[in-house]
Amino acid sequence: MINKLVQKIQNTHAPIVVGLDPMMNYIPEHIQKKAFEEYGETLEGAAEAIWQFNKEIVDSTYELIPAVKPQIAMYEQFGIPGLQAFQKTVDYCHEKDLVVIGDIKRGDIGSTSAAYAAGHIGTVKVGTKVYHPFDEDFVTVNPYLGTDGVKPFVDVCKEEQKGLFILVKTSNPSSGEFQDRLIDGKPLYELVGEKVAQWGADCMGDQYSYIGAVVGATYPEMGKVLRKIMPKSYILVPGYGAQGGKGADLVHFFDQDGLGAIVNSSRGIIAAYKQEEYAQFGAEHFGEASRAAVEAMAKDIDQALQAVK
Amino acid sequence: MINKLVQKIQNTHAPIVVGLDPMMNYIPEHIQKKAFEEYGETLEGAAEAIWQFNKEIVDSTYELIPAVKPQIAMYEQFGIPGLQAFQKTVDYCHEKDLVVIGDIKRGDIGSTSAAYAAGHIGTVKVGTKVYHPFDEDFVTVNPYLGTDGVKPFVDVCKEEQKGLFILVKTSNPSSGEFQDRLIDGKPLYELVGEKVAQWGADCMGDQYSYIGAVVGATYPEMGKVLRKIMPKSYILVPGYGAQGGKGADLVHFFDQDGLGAIVNSSRGIIAAYKQEEYAQFGAEHFGEASRAAVEAMAKDIDQALQAVK
Repeated sequence: MINKLVQKIQNTHAPIVVGLDPMMNYIPEHIQKKAFEEYGETLEGAAEAIWQFNKEIVDSTYELIPAVKPQIAMYEQFGIPGLQAFQKTVDYCHEKDLVVIGDIKRGDIGSTSAAYAAGHIGTVKVGTKVYHPFDEDFVTVNPYLGTDGVKPFVDVCKEEQKGLFILVKTSNPSSGEFQDRLIDGKPLYELVGEKVAQWGADCMGDQYSYIGAVVGATYPEMGKVLRKIMPKSYILVPGYGAQGGKGADLVHFFDQDGLGAIVNSSRGIIAAYKQEEYAQFGAEHFGEASRAAVEAMAKDIDQALQAVK
Repeated sequence: MINKLVQKIQNTHAPIVVGLDPMMNYIPEHIQKKAFEEYGETLEGAAEAIWQFNKEIVDSTYELIPAVKPQIAMYEQFGIPGLQAFQKTVDYCHEKDLVVIGDIKRGDIGSTSAAYAAGHIGTVKVGTKVYHPFDEDFVTVNPYLGTDGVKPFVDVCKEEQKGLFILVKTSNPSSGEFQDRLIDGKPLYELVGEKVAQWGADCMGDQYSYIGAVVGATYPEMGKVLRKIMPKSYILVPGYGAQGGKGADLVHFFDQDGLGAIVNSSRGIIAAYKQEEYAQFGAEHFGEASRAAVEAMAKDIDQALQAVK
């Protein structure tokens, strides 16, 4: 799957992932209204609104991008119907041949991590039958429990040709509270980065490992260090745009050939129509606004990468 | 909710939580067979088997225990139908007046943690209507992202009178890989414990804070230290029984009055019928085996607590 991701990044010239994190206040009135007319102001109605919103964004952007990253919390908050919208979104993105990164940030003790891995990127057995329940291509994993919490995910990746992005340095303001604390003179995130490199060493695709890392766009200096610590790991970079990161900040997350990193934007793309810059599209044409925002983001990153060549 | 939990522990004289972590190989043949006859060897069939299994265990034990802890991964692995069984289990345990600790180990950046908190212990708005999607009483939270990842959960607890157990020191063998590393001479888990005490300080129930901590039974010495660092936090102690912890190891997790900690057992109770000790019940009477295992566990812990009085 890492090979497919790299291939698609090369084909689209866009190391971009669109974060499908549909907060209700991003979803235009007309979509909400139609969904509520059909299903009432119910969890099912919210799920329908989310699904119709996602579908239009995917339809408007899928040829320009290699991957999407649905944030499962935004679906899980609407209970079972919300999770059905998550599943529908994953399936639809696969139909459009997009790589799907399930942003689930799971992580537990061994047997429990094995269950999460089975449900999201692997298979479960029921009697004599085998199922792929959620079937994302990559998932994000929280490393706080250490190797035996991560290994079951790695094992499933090996069997199923899937991949991981492990939280190393997150994009939020208080990420430093634990992640930056010094251990033997090195910040915790570097130790986690070293482990990611180690876990990924025998999980190689053609050029990169399928065990990648999450490093926030908001911390470019740390990205520079971590790029060296994990030379074979793809880096998923959240925090572009709305959280403050800009293309020029991100060049050190990449290798010299422009590979090695993929930058996520959520609100900046899916709620582009709410920004002054794209207001001319109007809420009715929010998909076109998202497409324009993808094009602008790809250009911003490409220019930044060209400038350091 | 912490007051209710403490009250129920006092009433039952059992600081015990039954971990409803139904692995398929714990579920007796006759339950699986019946479920598969009705729903086929499908995800729905697996979910039905899980639900029937849980129901019998709850029916057999609910008067003896204050709380249950369903591990959501064991449900999520069976996709949407599995999560429906999770929800049915939570609802049924509420009917039986049990406190429900959702073992979800979520944790993300602020707005995303807010969505998890809304879905699991809070409310979501859909148009003019308000829903409580999963509606557990407590959830477990992963602290790796720091204060702004935890705070949205705390905020919802304040509004909804719910509670948290934050991962401090987990029970698994490699938990030390990051959690035990020394920072300014103190292990990371102590720093997290200090934060838990801090987050919980303005979240007080009558005697304890509703912001608690998870500390594995497998690390009794650390339990002793953490009990002092977090004097007002209830400690949820996994790892009893199958993972190796015994009553005598656990006394230092408790305060002198026998409160302050609640010990989880999953496999040791729900799959008791598979142990030599309870084999006489047979798979047909697995609920009674679970009840006997609860009684033995309560006695083991009570004796250990009496011995140090």
